[in-house]
Amino acid sequence: MEFTRPRGTRDFLFDEMRERKKAESILRNVFENYAYQEIKTPLFEELKLFTTKSGEEIVDQLYNFKDKSDRELTLRPEITAPVARLYLNELQKTASKPIKLYYYGSCFRYERPQKGRFRQFWQFGCELIGAKSPQGEAEVIAMCSESIEKLGIPGADVNINHLGIIRGLFKHFNIDTATQREVMVVIDKGDKDLLKESLTGENPIIDNEELNHVLFKLIDMVGDKSIIKDIEELVAPYPESHDALNELEELIDTLASFKMENYTLNLGVARGLDYYTGIVFEVYIPSLGAQKQVCGGGTYSLIKIFGGEEVVSTGFAFGFDRLMNAIEELATPEELPCPIDIYVAPISDDVRLKAYEITQTLRSAGIACDVDLNGKKFKKIMNHANKIKVKQVAIIGAKDLENNQITIKNMESGNQELVDLDNVVEYIKGV
Amino acid sequence: MEFTRPRGTRDFLFDEMRERKKAESILRNVFENYAYQEIKTPLFEELKLFTTKSGEEIVDQLYNFKDKSDRELTLRPEITAPVARLYLNELQKTASKPIKLYYYGSCFRYERPQKGRFRQFWQFGCELIGAKSPQGEAEVIAMCSESIEKLGIPGADVNINHLGIIRGLFKHFNIDTATQREVMVVIDKGDKDLLKESLTGENPIIDNEELNHVLFKLIDMVGDKSIIKDIEELVAPYPESHDALNELEELIDTLASFKMENYTLNLGVARGLDYYTGIVFEVYIPSLGAQKQVCGGGTYSLIKIFGGEEVVSTGFAFGFDRLMNAIEELATPEELPCPIDIYVAPISDDVRLKAYEITQTLRSAGIACDVDLNGKKFKKIMNHANKIKVKQVAIIGAKDLENNQITIKNMESGNQELVDLDNVVEYIKGV
Repeated sequence: MEFTRPRGTRDFLFDEMRERKKAESILRNVFENYAYQEIKTPLFEELKLFTTKSGEEIVDQLYNFKDKSDRELTLRPEITAPVARLYLNELQKTASKPIKLYYYGSCFRYERPQKGRFRQFWQFGCELIGAKSPQGEAEVIAMCSESIEKLGIPGADVNINHLGIIRGLFKHFNIDTATQREVMVVIDKGDKDLLKESLTGENPIIDNEELNHVLFKLIDMVGDKSIIKDIEELVAPYPESHDALNELEELIDTLASFKMENYTLNLGVARGLDYYTGIVFEVYIPSLGAQKQVCGGGTYSLIKIFGGEEVVSTGFAFGFDRLMNAIEELATPEELPCPIDIYVAPISDDVRLKAYEITQTLRSAGIACDVDLNGKKFKKIMNHANKIKVKQVAIIGAKDLENNQITIKNMESGNQELVDLDNVVEYIKGV
Repeated sequence: MEFTRPRGTRDFLFDEMRERKKAESILRNVFENYAYQEIKTPLFEELKLFTTKSGEEIVDQLYNFKDKSDRELTLRPEITAPVARLYLNELQKTASKPIKLYYYGSCFRYERPQKGRFRQFWQFGCELIGAKSPQGEAEVIAMCSESIEKLGIPGADVNINHLGIIRGLFKHFNIDTATQREVMVVIDKGDKDLLKESLTGENPIIDNEELNHVLFKLIDMVGDKSIIKDIEELVAPYPESHDALNELEELIDTLASFKMENYTLNLGVARGLDYYTGIVFEVYIPSLGAQKQVCGGGTYSLIKIFGGEEVVSTGFAFGFDRLMNAIEELATPEELPCPIDIYVAPISDDVRLKAYEITQTLRSAGIACDVDLNGKKFKKIMNHANKIKVKQVAIIGAKDLENNQITIKNMESGNQELVDLDNVVEYIKGV
């Protein structure tokens, strides 16, 4: 019988796991420096939590199942909805605002696996619940940007939009919600030709030339803050769009005091989902090609959808696996050091038990070390130590032991030094 | 509409999450000091992976489901079988032995939730593949014991047995496998009265007075190494049992050189599953009552069950949630420090943007800090800083800023000090 890994899933082995943990730890440090605290929610939730947020269509992409008591459950496809549920269950009544929380965990989607897309994948994200805009938004975007910087990934392109600009237009022209959604989905695809066809082709989604004209021009607005002037001209006749633009400008000013200077205003960022109300942003790493989007987020009123009090939230999630792809692509990847500090090598069988004792002394002092467990001869042990590129080897010999000493060999320089057993911990820690 | 957490699952909030991460980190340190490296396998696997290992009966306790292509999958109930699959898929051909790996992750079982038993729970465990016995076993047991010690949990009782002693008896008396299994299940329950009834009652499982008599006496052997003599007398007529006892004695000697002195020999430890072949052990924290077992492990030939080459493995897994219960029970729990180092408090609105800038400077220097995002007045900010017990507050005032200075207030002593903005990172890091 053969056993295989389920389609679209991965095993992570030693080095890859270390790289991932290193990245996790960098992200945790940044988020915690911004006073975010980690939470964890279950791997599965009630199915209706996600259909309420994203519509029944999402079921096609879910690992949903009935448990043995016929409850409709699903492996979570994302962690924003579980966080909203947690907020309603545990925090709404008691916690003082703003609440800053972050999460890291597996998500699942049932779709055709392809390069860079897996059925079990990881999200690292945050929610800021109950902070004022634009201060809260500016801080969140600055944290997102600093995270990528601290990971050492160059070239990240942070794209910011205010959905109120387009929604203001929709409102001005009395466009119904279903049509709005249809247009936003097309915008979200980022395909200019498709958008042109949808707005100005033979069967346009919206039957209004003025709106189509303004929309098509707006979506094309991408650049630094100098484009604000052009947007202003375009939306001047539409007061609600203009108000949203003013909010975007206020965000830009606030971003500066959060030392966030490097971003793109991009009115084509649509985010797809209805619950985004204001600022939205996406981060692209262009070198990742088709899977270039590593992060999406914005401000939304999700809590209300789930029956809670109105409270503004801003959040984002990194596609952790894509960040790892970007790190792997780096031109000069750092080589991982040997995972242990020292290897303990008995010269002969009669000092093997003593070698175990010394190994244990080192370990309980916090020194990572290994010792042969298979009765290998000294030469083979040294070969192994060479192979794993350990920096030091503790050579245990009967003669040295008579003087209560062992030999520490530096494997890079080849130098050997006799060290008193009583001082060996200090000696190794000092190297 | 109300949204609730699925039955038997938990949300982990801020402080609990910190406590768990602290324990995770202690365990990772110990395991890595023993040269173990972390791996990760998928959250779900093919159903047959677990039925092959544990029999069809296990399905009742699984979260099994069919995916949209009718594959029989299940959320994993434990991580030993996935590790064996990973070894067969990825390591058998290439990795040099012994292989030392560890894992930490969620497991799932569908059973009635009760105190200390959840449907999503965490296991922290290891596998040592291809090391010689008893050296490998001794090291594994020593690591298990040191882990609990480093977590600060007192009173752990490490119980060791060699299943070969009982299996040697079965062999001697030609007991078939099904009957063996039946007896082992009863032994595993640890219920002396039930065992007595099963062996010596009206309808004994085994129809052999001599065997029942020896078995019943053996199971009762619990104590330090002084009981070896009594066991020896009991099993003297049965050579295979005697050989196993010799192996147990060799383990005891080896444990001493691994500095592991504190354990109980307990011939009642049966572990339930067929694939254990030699040494088995369980760790109890008596104060946890009915859920006192925090760890189980032993030596087995699991790889062979899955169709691989014969290779000896020794491993164990901690019930991480039970370890956390033991930590929570400690008489003098350490209070968690405030998660941030400093709070930045603008005295008035005109220095608010400057306060953001200073906050960002501190954060990028690796100082965890927070700043008000809701336009609160200074007095309210200081109240909040008091409430979260932060050690220091950076007070930002217009006058100080004229001299390029801010005031750092020590919230414990009440002392305030004017610090040059250029030196503020060093000042805070020095406190």
